[in-house]
Amino acid sequence: MKMSELLQRSGVPLATVKYYLREGLLPPGESIGATRADYGEEHVRRLALIRALTEVVGLPLASVRTILGLIDEPEADTFAALGRAIAVLPPAVEADPDGDYPRARAALEEIGQLYDPGYAAVAQLEQALAAAEAAGLPMGRERLHGYARHVMAIAELDLAQLPGTETSRAVEYSVLGTALYEPILAAMRRLAHQDLASRLLGGAAGEPGL
Amino acid sequence: MKMSELLQRSGVPLATVKYYLREGLLPPGESIGATRADYGEEHVRRLALIRALTEVVGLPLASVRTILGLIDEPEADTFAALGRAIAVLPPAVEADPDGDYPRARAALEEIGQLYDPGYAAVAQLEQALAAAEAAGLPMGRERLHGYARHVMAIAELDLAQLPGTETSRAVEYSVLGTALYEPILAAMRRLAHQDLASRLLGGAAGEPGL
Repeated sequence: MKMSELLQRSGVPLATVKYYLREGLLPPGESIGATRADYGEEHVRRLALIRALTEVVGLPLASVRTILGLIDEPEADTFAALGRAIAVLPPAVEADPDGDYPRARAALEEIGQLYDPGYAAVAQLEQALAAAEAAGLPMGRERLHGYARHVMAIAELDLAQLPGTETSRAVEYSVLGTALYEPILAAMRRLAHQDLASRLLGGAAGEPGL
Repeated sequence: MKMSELLQRSGVPLATVKYYLREGLLPPGESIGATRADYGEEHVRRLALIRALTEVVGLPLASVRTILGLIDEPEADTFAALGRAIAVLPPAVEADPDGDYPRARAALEEIGQLYDPGYAAVAQLEQALAAAEAAGLPMGRERLHGYARHVMAIAELDLAQLPGTETSRAVEYSVLGTALYEPILAAMRRLAHQDLASRLLGGAAGEPGL
């Protein structure tokens, strides 16, 4: 397709597409003359992905570049590529210089899950557990096991929809699925609390549909 | 106890305590002379809560004031007080002027939960569902039901640890528990993905403990 059609199909303005081409975020089209190029479905798809990562997920372009790099030149090791891709997502948590995450290690050992201090979510869990502790609501053993069981079930649902284990597809799905479903899950938990509270406490708004 | 002991027990600097007293966030001590006052355990507890809300949860002082107001002058309706308290937590999502949240309404009807468009998490769910849709990963029916089942089980664990249904205690627990356990759950989901991926894909870091 011509550039004009690419612009129309993607909804991305010309100046932005040119910028992505210059920066190498969008591969060049097939040259069909000195000033014209032909674009394909992969260009439409790539622009949709960049748009989702920047506008919907809200990532800075440097993070988008990292993710696209992992998609375009997949490492031999899909597992490592997934870890690197997820690490660019917020929240940005500083890694411990000694790689020491005592609360996260204890929690993961307690629930029998992989403890890999190089994985960004370990530092994230450590920080979140320390915060709960500092606020006087430390994570208890019973809650930890309960959460772990249900979170693992949710993760299994996510993995069941993984579109194959090819690195590029897996990276794209994992990044988008992690970033987009976290806020959905957080909102659903607040709504489940409200649903339970309405049954426990009654109250004016306790009637469904009001 | 004297002010000096309150400062030591709470770890909050004098200037900050004086500011909280002036602003009415901390109730005055019992006057025992023209320039001295006696403070009790409730002052230590209140300072710990303000510290948790500002430093750990990261709320602005205006939000802390709203929450303390709900704790100090509980409404007759605990259910409504909880809704107001949770509404001050991030993310700040703009309410629809017409109170219209079609995706959230359809999702909550589908899973048989209370739909109350005045509750802030409804707008939050609507925005999150719209984002997933815009990025090409709309929430499917199967995923919705799976998520809902496990999120409700997590919410039941949370409610089981509610320290009584007295409004002031319920508000404090709900605000802290919502804000502090959301990042824990998000990190746990990423770690569960990694644990599953290590079994599915192997990879260099796939051995627990490496």
